[in-house]
Amino acid sequence: MKLTILGCYSATPRTFTNPTSQVLEIRNHLFLIDCGEGTQVQLRKNKIKFSRIKHIFISHLHGDHFFGLPGLISTFRLLGRETEMHIYGPKGIKEAITLFLKLGDSWTNFPLIFHELKSKESELIFEDEQVSVHTIPLKHRIYTNGFLFQEKPSPRKLDIEAVAEHKIDRSQYNNIKNGADGILESGTVVPNASLTIDPPDPKSYAFCSDTVYNEDILPLIKNVDTLYHESTFLETESNLGEKTKHSTAKQAALIAQKADVGSLILGHYSTRYKSIDLFREEALQVFSNVELADDGKSFEI
Amino acid sequence: MKLTILGCYSATPRTFTNPTSQVLEIRNHLFLIDCGEGTQVQLRKNKIKFSRIKHIFISHLHGDHFFGLPGLISTFRLLGRETEMHIYGPKGIKEAITLFLKLGDSWTNFPLIFHELKSKESELIFEDEQVSVHTIPLKHRIYTNGFLFQEKPSPRKLDIEAVAEHKIDRSQYNNIKNGADGILESGTVVPNASLTIDPPDPKSYAFCSDTVYNEDILPLIKNVDTLYHESTFLETESNLGEKTKHSTAKQAALIAQKADVGSLILGHYSTRYKSIDLFREEALQVFSNVELADDGKSFEI
Repeated sequence: MKLTILGCYSATPRTFTNPTSQVLEIRNHLFLIDCGEGTQVQLRKNKIKFSRIKHIFISHLHGDHFFGLPGLISTFRLLGRETEMHIYGPKGIKEAITLFLKLGDSWTNFPLIFHELKSKESELIFEDEQVSVHTIPLKHRIYTNGFLFQEKPSPRKLDIEAVAEHKIDRSQYNNIKNGADGILESGTVVPNASLTIDPPDPKSYAFCSDTVYNEDILPLIKNVDTLYHESTFLETESNLGEKTKHSTAKQAALIAQKADVGSLILGHYSTRYKSIDLFREEALQVFSNVELADDGKSFEI
Repeated sequence: MKLTILGCYSATPRTFTNPTSQVLEIRNHLFLIDCGEGTQVQLRKNKIKFSRIKHIFISHLHGDHFFGLPGLISTFRLLGRETEMHIYGPKGIKEAITLFLKLGDSWTNFPLIFHELKSKESELIFEDEQVSVHTIPLKHRIYTNGFLFQEKPSPRKLDIEAVAEHKIDRSQYNNIKNGADGILESGTVVPNASLTIDPPDPKSYAFCSDTVYNEDILPLIKNVDTLYHESTFLETESNLGEKTKHSTAKQAALIAQKADVGSLILGHYSTRYKSIDLFREEALQVFSNVELADDGKSFEI
């Protein structure tokens, strides 16, 4: 799994900082998460192939998380896209996007499928053989969801040397990958464990922005490999966090610690601070594996 | 009058090119003309003070001319704006912007006043003592207006040396500026022309984008000092111009020539061409005073 940060600063786009947007490469998918103004330019700058994006997840309808969406959809149209596009986001997103395209008399020539969200409970919103996506209900000023992206376990891998040594017929390979024992010509059974090796552990990524400190999400994000948790403020401005329903770096670290996640990525920084290193310093007092998101930065999960 | 080009490329924002937006400094006003995605970042890059903008003119509701507007308005709100903002644009613009702000539960704390346009005739849409703005109906795929910005004649200027020599009392200065003769203590009348100098000629600027070649606009833009006329294509792609209701550089030059304007600025370039110099070369074959718009470039009018 590979996460690329297109933008991770709060509020307005500035000369050198972009509002929230991320691309998650997970198995055969390229998921776009949030779409602040300028996201399509960030996709270009980071050389991400537009056509590979087929699913867009929008956390909430504040401008810094979705004002880039009408332009991105229009650009897909100009690029001659034909394959369908799925958009997951709060109720109202369909009306908004539809109105903008209608006003320009520029409806898409590809299927645009909206999956509007309104549940306050976590729900499964996407699933195929390899991946699942659940919502993570967050607490912000308006209806907001985080998203939990999970790989499914891969089939076991054939131990090429072992099957050759036992002279196992190729016709059994798929069954063995799916857990069956091998059967020799003589009728002898070779246990599956002798013919296969463990697949890599399935990975998981949780995106949580924007939100106040909220322990309700702990069961949903328990043990994820990587958690992105917003940290708009430092503890010195915790009163602002309370007021605007955002978190501090320390609060993000507390969530990471209590959920026992593998690593924490901080982001959605207020631009009031001199350096984003301050966020990491504060979080490190609570949790040891802290990374800083930054525009254009990638993380292997 | 000073025109600053924030963006002048057609279609989608790219890494180094921006969709249409311009700032016109005219007398005491800073007018924003069109607002493609990323306009607020371009305003920052060009160090233009957001608070000075009180009037925004939107030509039409294609994304590359107005998708930056919801974000710009949200940013005005975040910056604590209190003074009113006037937005002039096609019918539908109010519903669109209102919906986007409503979804984010982030209505502005300053008065946002929409002036929706639907007339197919030129109309006066703004006027004060110093400036007037008329629409220029254009022909494009959807309802579109250009805008004619005109300074009003300034009062005559006092000839400081002449009034001193004649010992004219200060109480007469304003009347003299407005055209009255001077009267000496002795009762002698000194003609206005001896006490004043001509004010600078009032200047005018016409913005015409997007449009096909359309001679109907000639009476409206006759003799303007500067005409910005779109030139999406070169003559080699004139068939595309016809089809998409855009102009070629030659057609823009023909309009400039027939309207006998002072200078022509080309823009709204398709990015299919290697160099924008090609647009100027083509236009120069028809009209002699041709300039090329480019992002971040300013023109004194």
